[in-house]
Amino acid sequence: MRNPKGKLVIIGGSVDRGSFSESPADLHRNLKFFEKGILKRITTEAAKGNLSRIEIITTASNIPEEVGEEYIKSFAQLGVLNVGVLNIKKREEANSPENIERLKNADVVMFTGGDQLRLTSIFGGTAFHHLLLEKYEYENFVISGTSAGAAASSNNMIYQGSSHGALLKGEVKITGGLGFINNVIIDTHFVQRGRIGRLLYSCASNPINLGIGLGEDTGLLIIDGNNMEAIGSGLIILVDGTHMRNTNMTEVEMGEPISIENLIVHVMSIGDHFDLKNKRLIIGHHKIPINPGLKE
Amino acid sequence: MRNPKGKLVIIGGSVDRGSFSESPADLHRNLKFFEKGILKRITTEAAKGNLSRIEIITTASNIPEEVGEEYIKSFAQLGVLNVGVLNIKKREEANSPENIERLKNADVVMFTGGDQLRLTSIFGGTAFHHLLLEKYEYENFVISGTSAGAAASSNNMIYQGSSHGALLKGEVKITGGLGFINNVIIDTHFVQRGRIGRLLYSCASNPINLGIGLGEDTGLLIIDGNNMEAIGSGLIILVDGTHMRNTNMTEVEMGEPISIENLIVHVMSIGDHFDLKNKRLIIGHHKIPINPGLKE
Repeated sequence: MRNPKGKLVIIGGSVDRGSFSESPADLHRNLKFFEKGILKRITTEAAKGNLSRIEIITTASNIPEEVGEEYIKSFAQLGVLNVGVLNIKKREEANSPENIERLKNADVVMFTGGDQLRLTSIFGGTAFHHLLLEKYEYENFVISGTSAGAAASSNNMIYQGSSHGALLKGEVKITGGLGFINNVIIDTHFVQRGRIGRLLYSCASNPINLGIGLGEDTGLLIIDGNNMEAIGSGLIILVDGTHMRNTNMTEVEMGEPISIENLIVHVMSIGDHFDLKNKRLIIGHHKIPINPGLKE
Repeated sequence: MRNPKGKLVIIGGSVDRGSFSESPADLHRNLKFFEKGILKRITTEAAKGNLSRIEIITTASNIPEEVGEEYIKSFAQLGVLNVGVLNIKKREEANSPENIERLKNADVVMFTGGDQLRLTSIFGGTAFHHLLLEKYEYENFVISGTSAGAAASSNNMIYQGSSHGALLKGEVKITGGLGFINNVIIDTHFVQRGRIGRLLYSCASNPINLGIGLGEDTGLLIIDGNNMEAIGSGLIILVDGTHMRNTNMTEVEMGEPISIENLIVHVMSIGDHFDLKNKRLIIGHHKIPINPGLKE
């Protein structure tokens, strides 16, 4: 979609092991650590500020009740009280009039971490998914996702692939995402899990997609489907394959290492902006304090 | 130095945890796993082939006896029997006439893994170091290093820096290396330890240095101080900062995240060549078998 009215906030996951070790003991610490500044920014960007209706979508998670609870507490600490949890577990629930009605009334949705394949296999093509796309296109509506929730928000989505073997042909598994933004492919827990190979591979396989590697505790606010602003305390690695000169990806067998000539990499941190259409990084000014959300 | 007659073989470490967990139990497996093909190639490139005199320099290691023993066994399996171990532990030993004499008679030296700061602090500026440089410049002499031994071979050497915090100003620690090659900076265990940040940081701080990230089980054979050939089974990431447009590295405080616009990245695998002077990757042909050294 071109020039959506909505805003997209994608977050690289918590500083802890995030989506894949959702032990209840770690959960509170996770959220405290990483999302306060970013959650604050989400409410600032939302149509009705602190009064906005926020739905936490815990579908990706294995422990949805605990995760939902923590988000409610965290938003409450920011004075945001109109928050619900939508634990949609099956496709039929993603078509139910009750859930559609709740989405209609929401100003913000927040997709939690977990498994991004759950998000796409449960929501893909449902009435809920179509309404999300419509609201994002025509309303001042905020879609936010962390970890799996971030990975699923683009049109092409990485859902598996070891860091070690990422540059062996066929190792990085990609499928269709929820498509809130096109021409990007998003990876999370990025620096921490050594995932550069997954992103290089994804970009080489189709350079129309800008690779976005979100560090933990770090996110992008995307406005107009084009203007990206780095938020949070960490780093974002961007991979631009537009000027790729050569790869042997089509020549080697499955499981063999691939070669790639000339990908461009940018490193973004808080306050920097990136223009997706023109592929230009605008580095911001001096950056203290680390988290601007906390100033407000 | 320009157009040295010697050859340099730098290796990214073993597929195991390599330099930092040198448990004797893992050692044999390590070498079996990763270095057979590369060791074979070293002997092929050496002045006298299988009859070459090889000195294993175990100075970087905490368990030099065990490491030396394993290399001797591995070379023996390849039919290379004229192999010694030089466990130089102090600067005075790096100036002793006996050790200088042994180096004079060597066709190949192999620096093992361990701590690269041990290599530079013990060898730097000694008679042994000067003779290494001289032999490398004027003789058909092979200098090889794995892990710490590879890291130490360039003029600027990374010796510390967490993967997580690598793009915070001041986090990546660099000092002078042994200087067998200039205008590169080498990192090892690369994909496996998520070290892309260290290399991006190093290149941004001085783009004259090409960043070389060697995966485990992977190396570069460098001839003429310029022509690089990928060897081994894994991947090499190259970072070229020549066309960097902008960084805020000089503006932010120590410990703050930095931003970088426009670094170029290449992915190399076996059989690819890279021209250091012209910064061009030449992707090789179809690549079976994985390890050409084993064919010979």
